[in-house]
Amino acid sequence: MTVQRILIVAGTHGNEINPIWAVKQFNRNENSLKHGIEYEYIIGNPIAYEKGCRYIDADLNRSFKKSKNYDQNENSFYEISRANFLVDQFGINGSKPCQIAIDLHTTTANMGTSIVMYGRRFKDFCLAALLQNKFGLPIYLHEKDKSQTGFLVEAWPCGLVIEIGAVAQNFYDPKIINRFLIIISSLRDEIDKLKKNLIELPKDLVVHVHQGSVDYPRDEKGDIDGLIHPKRINRDWKMIKKGDPLFLNSQGIIYKYDGDQFIWPVFIGEVAYKEKQIAMSYTNKEVICSKNEWVQEFHRL
Amino acid sequence: MTVQRILIVAGTHGNEINPIWAVKQFNRNENSLKHGIEYEYIIGNPIAYEKGCRYIDADLNRSFKKSKNYDQNENSFYEISRANFLVDQFGINGSKPCQIAIDLHTTTANMGTSIVMYGRRFKDFCLAALLQNKFGLPIYLHEKDKSQTGFLVEAWPCGLVIEIGAVAQNFYDPKIINRFLIIISSLRDEIDKLKKNLIELPKDLVVHVHQGSVDYPRDEKGDIDGLIHPKRINRDWKMIKKGDPLFLNSQGIIYKYDGDQFIWPVFIGEVAYKEKQIAMSYTNKEVICSKNEWVQEFHRL
Repeated sequence: MTVQRILIVAGTHGNEINPIWAVKQFNRNENSLKHGIEYEYIIGNPIAYEKGCRYIDADLNRSFKKSKNYDQNENSFYEISRANFLVDQFGINGSKPCQIAIDLHTTTANMGTSIVMYGRRFKDFCLAALLQNKFGLPIYLHEKDKSQTGFLVEAWPCGLVIEIGAVAQNFYDPKIINRFLIIISSLRDEIDKLKKNLIELPKDLVVHVHQGSVDYPRDEKGDIDGLIHPKRINRDWKMIKKGDPLFLNSQGIIYKYDGDQFIWPVFIGEVAYKEKQIAMSYTNKEVICSKNEWVQEFHRL
Repeated sequence: MTVQRILIVAGTHGNEINPIWAVKQFNRNENSLKHGIEYEYIIGNPIAYEKGCRYIDADLNRSFKKSKNYDQNENSFYEISRANFLVDQFGINGSKPCQIAIDLHTTTANMGTSIVMYGRRFKDFCLAALLQNKFGLPIYLHEKDKSQTGFLVEAWPCGLVIEIGAVAQNFYDPKIINRFLIIISSLRDEIDKLKKNLIELPKDLVVHVHQGSVDYPRDEKGDIDGLIHPKRINRDWKMIKKGDPLFLNSQGIIYKYDGDQFIWPVFIGEVAYKEKQIAMSYTNKEVICSKNEWVQEFHRL
């Protein structure tokens, strides 16, 4: 078997509106069927989109849990039932089975256009390598973070997040929309070539591997009492070392990075992560050699 | 009588967080008393700030109505009671009477640093002229819009809004904070000089006078079906003429400006105005000659 149907999800977070418009425009200009691959475009969280908020009861992009033993509360969450619906409909065993899911997101952080992967699945590496090779996109590899699980693309055998910023929540930005259009279009071309064995992977790919997250400084009441430091804001993907400033609190005190390892912070100041008590996430840099197995596994999708 | 106490309000909208931080930093660096003028710094909507949203029940910056005959619902609104509290406390007849109110706001629109005035009060012109003279700031004169009333500064004898953008809601941006610090600091200096008769007004000031607002294109269900056109987004304060593009809908149809007058759009794509069905507001440009009465009225504050 090979790839036959691909799911493109926009608006998994209801206030990330530019991908939704990219998909609308894309649908107008392109056929949903290309080279024998059918594309399904869907709004992840239509109710939250309607209301202009990230989610109704819980973050949809943390609601795709493997175990269905939710507690009493979660059972009634809109996003839990929505996640189940999406899997029942478009999951690999669903009524319209998709082998790949691409989930389109925006961020208020200055991340540029980037790829987010969850864990080290060979098929995902395959797609990520092609996009990095074509556009030089940075890759954030999210793994081993027990406090954050249940991401949408993990519920499919293969999948990536495309994350573009900086853009304000609910703000239409044609430049961001255009970037999504270019990525979706190229991804379709690359997947098509891959399917026809017309492509060679780059020798290696560079990933930024998630190491953990840090919260803002807080006062004794637990309220945020610190800005991202002026030298740190908007400098996602830039390396920092011991002693580099991270935060500035309301008393003018500077909080510095005090680890011994070089790190590359991402999602610096992302608005939606305040409630998760994340001011930025730390990554380190790793070079991974491409393997033939990546393509072989992709062909077995 | 002359100016004795000035109210500086930040966080009238709870998700506009940079002014709050500007005020915190300012409080640390400056005395609240300067040249005989006492400064009161306050968070307009502390509950909304805590929750990271614009407001709880209603827009606080539309809740300062002259008539207190609210309907049954409004009576229980948090923002109505908060508006009453602020006026009872800091209003001209309050327990700590302030003669001037300066209300600090941010916008997701690309407005730069600007001044918003409500109506043509001489004392407001006086302050606005000084700031425009010093920094060249554009002035948005909001008047004669019956659908939008109850602005905070209207409840004080003299007052301006300082509006800075573009910045995402809830996103800390040290550059935006710095701009507020500069404006607050200069405003204090200018008011001090004005009080001591050490200042001369510029010959005239240029204002952009509110003419009305336009909504996004909508589909038959009433849902937004159009982006701000790529040629229009982020071009606040730039003149447009008949035939210039305003919106692009999901079918690729361009909506054009079809008025005969030149206009200068502002608050283009402001996220918070979607619920008010405002995609942008139209202004025209007017030059107003300074009058001695402006300063005289200021001195009678």
